[in-house]
Amino acid sequence: MLGRTYDNQVCSIARALEVLGERWTLLIVRDAILGVHRFDDFQRSLGLARNVLTDRLGRLVDAGILERVPYQEHPVRHEYRLTPMGRELGLPVIGLMQWGDRHLAGPAGPPRLARHSDCGDPIRLAPVCDSCGAVPPGEVELVAGPGARQPAR
Amino acid sequence: MLGRTYDNQVCSIARALEVLGERWTLLIVRDAILGVHRFDDFQRSLGLARNVLTDRLGRLVDAGILERVPYQEHPVRHEYRLTPMGRELGLPVIGLMQWGDRHLAGPAGPPRLARHSDCGDPIRLAPVCDSCGAVPPGEVELVAGPGARQPAR
Repeated sequence: MLGRTYDNQVCSIARALEVLGERWTLLIVRDAILGVHRFDDFQRSLGLARNVLTDRLGRLVDAGILERVPYQEHPVRHEYRLTPMGRELGLPVIGLMQWGDRHLAGPAGPPRLARHSDCGDPIRLAPVCDSCGAVPPGEVELVAGPGARQPAR
Repeated sequence: MLGRTYDNQVCSIARALEVLGERWTLLIVRDAILGVHRFDDFQRSLGLARNVLTDRLGRLVDAGILERVPYQEHPVRHEYRLTPMGRELGLPVIGLMQWGDRHLAGPAGPPRLARHSDCGDPIRLAPVCDSCGAVPPGEVELVAGPGARQPAR
């Protein structure tokens, strides 16, 4: 949807960025995760030109990340809701947020905190092994999968 | 470094995207995570114009994500290595990869798999509570932190 410049890349990161690889797009997803659903609220939150916002929302609907849902009948009005596929972006978005918190947040500290709704304690994103549970990031290795065109480096 | 259009956004996601919010930049980080270090190897992997690659590598050095390290003396040649701050991008990048695997990888399956180096079993990215361990994504809530300008939605 953003051009086909990545066609030679056998890589799910490249494919994900082809859908998401524009800064405003991920900020729209962030707002939707935080509960923003209506055009005017996105516009107020992001300060984005209306024609650009219309374009980006349409791309996210085409990609299956947002869906348009009517919330009023006379006249018909729609709002934008995350699909299940869109909700699954929450984890990588929180990962980016916590990286930004650690390195870019400034002296005031993190603007938002992720916490466990059941007990209120902090949540961090971590690699979890099917057999061993949470493991240090240094113990993650990336190997060629079934869709590799050639052995991965 | 990509302009100051996000200055009104008190948000670590916006700040992270200000550094990373260009598609090639994250693919360069991906390559560095996979062990690519030299200009010509990045160029071969990404198929990117050399002047664009030079610009993007320079931005990543300025942002503290990559560092230039000499690997040869006569003549002096440099390669690009992830800093500790850069290595910490591995988790969100793997999160994006696994989202792409689930929704965009196509019938051949994932090109790359994340596994635990100690036991070889699959790794997934999950929210981990300081007290309760790994929890379902639906139990993560985002609340205002010390750096919030106003109560978060």
